Parts: sequence; C-alpha cells; structure tokens
Amino acid sequence: MLILVTNDDGIYAPGLAALYQELRRLGKVTVVAPESEQSAVGHAISLNTPLRVKKAPLAGDGWGWAVSGTPADCVKIALAELLPEPPDLVVSGINLGPNVGINVLYSGTVSAATEAAILGVRQAVAVSLDTYKDADFATAARITGKLLARLQEEKPPGEQLCLNINLPALPEEAIKGVRLTRQDTGPLVEHFDCRIDPRERQYYWLAEINSRQDLDPDTDYAALQAGYISITPLHHDLTHYPSLNDLRGLEK
Amino acid sequence: MLILVTNDDGIYAPGLAALYQELRRLGKVTVVAPESEQSAVGHAISLNTPLRVKKAPLAGDGWGWAVSGTPADCVKIALAELLPEPPDLVVSGINLGPNVGINVLYSGTVSAATEAAILGVRQAVAVSLDTYKDADFATAARITGKLLARLQEEKPPGEQLCLNINLPALPEEAIKGVRLTRQDTGPLVEHFDCRIDPRERQYYWLAEINSRQDLDPDTDYAALQAGYISITPLHHDLTHYPSLNDLRGLEK
Repeated sequence: MLILVTNDDGIYAPGLAALYQELRRLGKVTVVAPESEQSAVGHAISLNTPLRVKKAPLAGDGWGWAVSGTPADCVKIALAELLPEPPDLVVSGINLGPNVGINVLYSGTVSAATEAAILGVRQAVAVSLDTYKDADFATAARITGKLLARLQEEKPPGEQLCLNINLPALPEEAIKGVRLTRQDTGPLVEHFDCRIDPRERQYYWLAEINSRQDLDPDTDYAALQAGYISITPLHHDLTHYPSLNDLRGLEK
Repeated sequence: MLILVTNDDGIYAPGLAALYQELRRLGKVTVVAPESEQSAVGHAISLNTPLRVKKAPLAGDGWGWAVSGTPADCVKIALAELLPEPPDLVVSGINLGPNVGINVLYSGTVSAATEAAILGVRQAVAVSLDTYKDADFATAARITGKLLARLQEEKPPGEQLCLNINLPALPEEAIKGVRLTRQDTGPLVEHFDCRIDPRERQYYWLAEINSRQDLDPDTDYAALQAGYISITPLHHDLTHYPSLNDLRGLEK
C-alpha cells in the first residue's frame, strides 16, 4: 500500500512524525508537508507564488518533502510531481487540536484530505487530537493505525469522500468507543481582543476559536466531548439541494 | 437596508468599487475588504497574527475599511467590531474571474459569503465575473443590482445559506437568462509548470486552474459556459449523510 502523509502543523511537527512511524507498518509512506505551520489556512492554494520543494528530516527518524505552501498545495504537488504513482491512502495529521464543527472549514488538516478526495484518492483521512498541550501523539498514532486497519475491512467510502477523525486526548482504555457523526454547524463563541501595540496603535486578535455552546448530541463536537472518537464522512459538494427548488422562480 | 461589501481581490479593486456604487441605491453600504489581494485563500482565517484596520479610499469615490487579513477575517471583524448593527445583506465581489466547480473551495470570494451565512446574516451573496481581462464591472454591477432586487421578492434563502452568483462576461442583452445550478464536482485539468530560477534552482507553479473537461449540463460551469447567469445555493455542512450509514459498522 502506498501512503501519503501530510499535515498543517508543518513537517517538523511531532504529530506528523508519530503518524509516519505508525503507518510504516501498513505500507510504503511518503511525507509531503508544509515547511512552516499552516493552521487555519483552510483550502488555500498558491496561485501567485511558485512552490519550492526540499528534503527535510522528520522529528526522530526518516525524512520528507518540505513544500513552501499550504496543505492543499502539498497534496496537489505530491500527486502531480513527487509520487511515482497515485497513493492508495492519504492521511493528514495528527493535528495538535480538534477539527470539529465550523472549524472544519478553517482547517488546513481537513482541506488536505478533501483535496486528496477531489483528486480521486480512494481513501483520504484527516486526524486531529483534542488537546493543545502535552499531546500524547504516540498513543494517538497507535489508535489511528488500528482505525485505518479496520477501515480497510469495512465498506470503503466511495471516491470523492474523506473521513474527518477526531481523537479524545485520553488514555486508550478511557476512550468510550467510536461514533459516526455529522459536522456541527452551530455558531462558535468567539470575539476579537482589541489591544494596543508598543507604538500605541490598535490591533485585533481573534479569540476563543474552538468554543461552542448548545451541543447537539449527534455531532462531531458532542461525541468528542463525551469521550468518543468522532468520525465524520465529508464531501466537497457545497450545493444546498433543497434550495434549488425554492429559488426556481429566479430562472423566469 | 444595511449592506456589507467585501471581496478577495483587495480594497482597491475596480470590481469592488463598481459594486459599492451600485449597492448604494439599495441601502447603506459599508466596505470592509482585504488591504491586499487574497485570491485562492479559501476559508483561511488569521489566528497567529493580529489584524490591523485602517481607512482606505475606494477606486473612484467613497472609502472603506482595509483589513490586514483574509476575506473571512473581514466578515468576522466587520460584524464583531466595525458595523453598528448586523447587516441585512453581505455581498462579496465582484471577483475578477469565475468561481465555479471545485474552485468554489479555493475561493476567498465565496468563503466571505459563507462566513456571513455562518454568522447568521440573512442574505449572503458571492458575485464573480467570467473573465480575467477587460472586465466590464459597471455592467456586471448593474446586473447584480437587478438580481439582488429580485431576490428580495423571491422566497429568501434560509439562514446559513449563501448564493454563489457567476456572471458571463457578455453585454447584458446577450445573456441568455438565469440558471439555478449545482456546484460542479468534476476534476479540473491542471498541472505544475516546472521551471528553473535565475540561481539555477527548480521551482513549481500551478497552471490551468480553471480548466474543466466533460461538463454536466446542470452545473455552474456549464450554465456559465452556455451564456447564462449561474446561481448556486451553498451551505457549510460538509457531512456526506449517505455515508453515515455505510460506515456504521465502525461504531461496534
């Protein structure tokens, strides 16, 4: 099995190194990741600037291709230029911090997996860990490896789908199980901090990006918060089909 | 009616100025737009850097708030800090170049409208013009104004929806009409140009980003190519619901 690993935290991130070590048990792994952190870049791609590619050591052991672009850029150039043949599996992560609810739209981690699905990769997966500090990526990678092995046995998702996996930051025996969830669409609690710089000019900084009130129980947010692994199948057709009929009068 | 206008081509873009002039007929217009071009940034938001906001003149007449961030940043900070009350309508554009098919995911123009929908704005619209040169934004803005007036009469889209409007680059009398369309999801024709820089190092540049083969007739791509105005209702729930059942075995 040919596996492509990428992320949005950058090629030197420990979450990527842990994933690389684990997935080597499943097949031949190539790493193509951003040379610098690309959090919250969403599905950005580089049109106005060229991309540079160089070899870089991974944390611990191994090496990968470092790309001067976004996660989606990494997947595009890996498939077009760097891999000898199309991969069977693309895994993006392991992200430091969850990617659930509206944050899925902002997430470089998820966008890399979506890009792989767009490009026809049979299995595309994003993996995120629900903590911002003291992350145990070795445990998270081991759980991810087991999930991916099970995914090979289950009916595989069709082409042009990706799976958004979020792991609780708990010891493996404390995790309650797996929940298939929908993406939460409720509003986030967020605000801008308004601050004064050393030159007495105002600036703004977005705060509380992962806060959420009023959780619905069948969502990614709620499953993760209740101690379950959340798996959400995502696609990239944003059309809201029911509205096509509601608006049909505009065609007249 | 309180209207927020933004874009991804930047606050000095002529497409934004034309939209501003036209929408002043419909209500009170505030412009909050990126201080520099932000094409293909997708739904990126600024987490690691603060935002600066300053007044800037628009091309021709009027002024707006220039923000040192992405289109989604502009909508967030406009609603949180810059507007005295929530807007009734957010319009993003007029973009130089179409935003149809897979490009919808890469588009800062569309992401600004999506962000407005997420934040609960009743009517959020992205407008793009199908040309990269010699754009007649005055005509495009006039057509947009008429469409927005008609939208007020039709059943309005529910909350958390946005409309992705693409205009043919044709004289108004040559446009064949309006088509309600779905987002095309087919693969793009694209490749990387591999070039050598003045220091004899290799670099890559993504090419042909808007090319598409094998058009389905009910898509945004096809309607635009056939000379129609394309309107696609978009939402931001990426869940692929049919797959929730297919994968239910993973919960065991």
